[in-house]
Amino acid sequence: MSEKLNKLKEAIAEVADLNRAAALLGWDQQVNMPAAGAEARGRQLGTLGKIAQEKFISDEIGKLLEDLKQEFSDADFDDAAMIRVTARNYDKAKRVPPEFVAEQALVSSKAFEAWVQAKGMSDFSIFAPHLEKVVELVHKYISFFPPADHPYDTLLDDFEPGMKTAEVQAIFDALRPKQVQLIKAIKASRQVKDDFLHKKYNEKKLMDFGVDVITKYGYDWSRGRQDKAPHPFETSFSVNDVRITTRYEADNPMAMLFSTLHESGHAMYEQGINPAFERTALAGGTSLAVHESQSRMWENLVGRSLPFWEHFFPAFKKTFPSQLDGVSVKSFYKAVNKVEPSLIRVNADEATYNLHIMLRLELEIAMVERKVAIKDLPELWNTKMHEYLGITPPNSARGVLQDIHWSGGAIGYFSTYALGNLVSAQLWEKINKDIRGLEDQIRRGNFSELLAWLRKNIHQYGQKYDPQVLVERVTGSKITAEPYVRYLTKKYSEIYGL
Amino acid sequence: MSEKLNKLKEAIAEVADLNRAAALLGWDQQVNMPAAGAEARGRQLGTLGKIAQEKFISDEIGKLLEDLKQEFSDADFDDAAMIRVTARNYDKAKRVPPEFVAEQALVSSKAFEAWVQAKGMSDFSIFAPHLEKVVELVHKYISFFPPADHPYDTLLDDFEPGMKTAEVQAIFDALRPKQVQLIKAIKASRQVKDDFLHKKYNEKKLMDFGVDVITKYGYDWSRGRQDKAPHPFETSFSVNDVRITTRYEADNPMAMLFSTLHESGHAMYEQGINPAFERTALAGGTSLAVHESQSRMWENLVGRSLPFWEHFFPAFKKTFPSQLDGVSVKSFYKAVNKVEPSLIRVNADEATYNLHIMLRLELEIAMVERKVAIKDLPELWNTKMHEYLGITPPNSARGVLQDIHWSGGAIGYFSTYALGNLVSAQLWEKINKDIRGLEDQIRRGNFSELLAWLRKNIHQYGQKYDPQVLVERVTGSKITAEPYVRYLTKKYSEIYGL
Repeated sequence: MSEKLNKLKEAIAEVADLNRAAALLGWDQQVNMPAAGAEARGRQLGTLGKIAQEKFISDEIGKLLEDLKQEFSDADFDDAAMIRVTARNYDKAKRVPPEFVAEQALVSSKAFEAWVQAKGMSDFSIFAPHLEKVVELVHKYISFFPPADHPYDTLLDDFEPGMKTAEVQAIFDALRPKQVQLIKAIKASRQVKDDFLHKKYNEKKLMDFGVDVITKYGYDWSRGRQDKAPHPFETSFSVNDVRITTRYEADNPMAMLFSTLHESGHAMYEQGINPAFERTALAGGTSLAVHESQSRMWENLVGRSLPFWEHFFPAFKKTFPSQLDGVSVKSFYKAVNKVEPSLIRVNADEATYNLHIMLRLELEIAMVERKVAIKDLPELWNTKMHEYLGITPPNSARGVLQDIHWSGGAIGYFSTYALGNLVSAQLWEKINKDIRGLEDQIRRGNFSELLAWLRKNIHQYGQKYDPQVLVERVTGSKITAEPYVRYLTKKYSEIYGL
Repeated sequence: MSEKLNKLKEAIAEVADLNRAAALLGWDQQVNMPAAGAEARGRQLGTLGKIAQEKFISDEIGKLLEDLKQEFSDADFDDAAMIRVTARNYDKAKRVPPEFVAEQALVSSKAFEAWVQAKGMSDFSIFAPHLEKVVELVHKYISFFPPADHPYDTLLDDFEPGMKTAEVQAIFDALRPKQVQLIKAIKASRQVKDDFLHKKYNEKKLMDFGVDVITKYGYDWSRGRQDKAPHPFETSFSVNDVRITTRYEADNPMAMLFSTLHESGHAMYEQGINPAFERTALAGGTSLAVHESQSRMWENLVGRSLPFWEHFFPAFKKTFPSQLDGVSVKSFYKAVNKVEPSLIRVNADEATYNLHIMLRLELEIAMVERKVAIKDLPELWNTKMHEYLGITPPNSARGVLQDIHWSGGAIGYFSTYALGNLVSAQLWEKINKDIRGLEDQIRRGNFSELLAWLRKNIHQYGQKYDPQVLVERVTGSKITAEPYVRYLTKKYSEIYGL
């Protein structure tokens, strides 16, 4: 038996090496590659992906998995989990014909180009015929799998293994009215002043400050690095090489700082996974939502908290004395938490962000259920924006065309962002029960006990537990909206005096 | 037939993609990777190499090559050349059993560690037993191939396809007495002053100056980049992504500038290869010697020439006014060409460099002929150093242990450095016949006609012609020492008033 297990591990390790190599090619493309190198890089990524796929869905691996599944049934045993997750991935990969993967790549590539053009010209009609094709392929993709409770389940499962559409809808249904109500109350209150955040901040100093913060957080620089890239992201090539990127936006300088905190949360998750899981299906975070819970926790629950700024504000003010002249820590804290319904998801604050997601989820489900015509999406978008946030996009570029996801066929992805917010607050309540005086620790710039808790309860397990299983193991319940509502209500009641 | 050719091209393209991906992993390891990532990176490189090898020596490719070789016999036709070179590489790869490759990797890895330790302690006896094993494996490697005129031919052929040991020996035999004699004459002359080259030079300014120079050379930044790394090198991931590295050495600041010029020569070669050769066996320079002829030309024949400095010295002096206070262009030119027999190959000047190589070639041939006991290498080294350069290493670290090559089993490599010097001068004579007023062009900082000549006569062909064939096509004779002797004699007679 152990011989079969070793054989499986060896075969999977090769596939993992190919995927990690591809990840490096992707990182380099964002960070270093001269634009002229794109065509060759695309071919190289295509070849690596094709070979990894061929090797993964080999009959040899299929046979090994069949035999091994019989033997390993104890679900709390690492090898059993590894076999279970590998078998699930294998089954998914086997169901999707290579010709479909090739067709999808082609359609996505054209849809992406059309989306860039459509967004630039703010003309949805340019993108619409491509989105039609993307959605047709999504239907085809769903058809490769056994019928689920809801066709959207198949899509969601790729990002949140084991999660059901009905579960997400129930969570969001509980959340929506609370957030809408909160925003209304905030809108009726005295507004927060944040003009000093939009002055000119020196890029290098801002970047260095972010580096200092995440060093205190516990991001391990001996196993990573930060570079500049057009978009902030985290990627890893092993548990010992986990990199992040950041960017400077002249009209929104604080985004550089908070995106560094955000990506460091993803990175610390990856750095904390059991090294024994390397080159197996258990390497990497367990789902997008759980990953996002880590990034959001370090960005928001820690990085936008008052104790955090009580620690860091004096140094920050010393770094930017003219910009912050006369600004108190309290008013700075309020400013970085200013709530303002806005059109663009990626710039949304904590109180409004989830509503952007809910809108997208509803539209995606309507597309999958064929209950909306593609051409009607812009209007439906605008109607919902008004309903949830009280504002209406002036054009499609700042409305339905703002996100890249659909052009790449990534339908089923968005809700993980909101779920991540919920999980972060759910974990936070448990953490504050387990760690006495966490606020004081943060006020002293001490994050070690927090990181150790996350390492022990979340990070180390990698993909051993599915997201709902993991969250329930740790907090006693599956993903729920209540802690996040409590968190938002408390925080914004104080800030806005509700 | 064209169907078979397409099939071959497709299969080879995949192998090429894997090798280019591996090259990026190697580049990243030198330039960006945190040290902790080394173990995983080694495994990833191992996997990519293994899969590329397996795919390359497949029976399918063997069969296609057999069939295609029959059909394509016109040697001056791109596809014929591609089939010929692919078949040669295939034959070589097929002869070497995978177990041997694995054994060699293991032995090399241990020999490398022993070499690092031996060099650090300047104790050859630590390295000797490992070098014994390396040499045994070299003998075994030779045994996989049909007997050649000389067993060393098999090794040389991997770096200089088609070149014979006897040819190299004949060339070096003609060269050796001339260089020894020249050095003696220089030693007896009035010495050149170069103290101002060893002052403190600002790294950033030095690097920027190098960037300016190679921009004028014609290095295409839209298809490349320069980074810092522990060792200068050039590498490419496609004809449109050709990168170089450089480094700063506090005790030898000019090395940063000249290594940039050197690597730009390699890079412009790669950037100039026919794009139609991408993902085939014809991509890449044709041999190490021809590659080195390009790097040496831009570094030395151009970059250490008087016209070059007549153009660049005013700006250089403006950049470093205090270091170069009172220094004339003539004395600067003499200083960067100062001849001084020295112990370390990589720091050797143009007049002494080749003697370092000849010494190594003689020792390598003696090892391959089993005419020297490994334990006697240090003494033999020192004897020859005294004979050729008139100096004796004080210890093994600065003698027989100085180079990494043997620890990695790279026996047969060294002579390509000297051959590169010879080819650079041989091409230079032809270039100066073909381009009227080249010196004046260089004096005006105009390198476009020179680069165009190299593109047309050398670069574009990639590996279509073997090195001796290419050199003969262009210059009318195979590789010969005479132009280099003429070049050295003229240059140093002027500088040293011989």
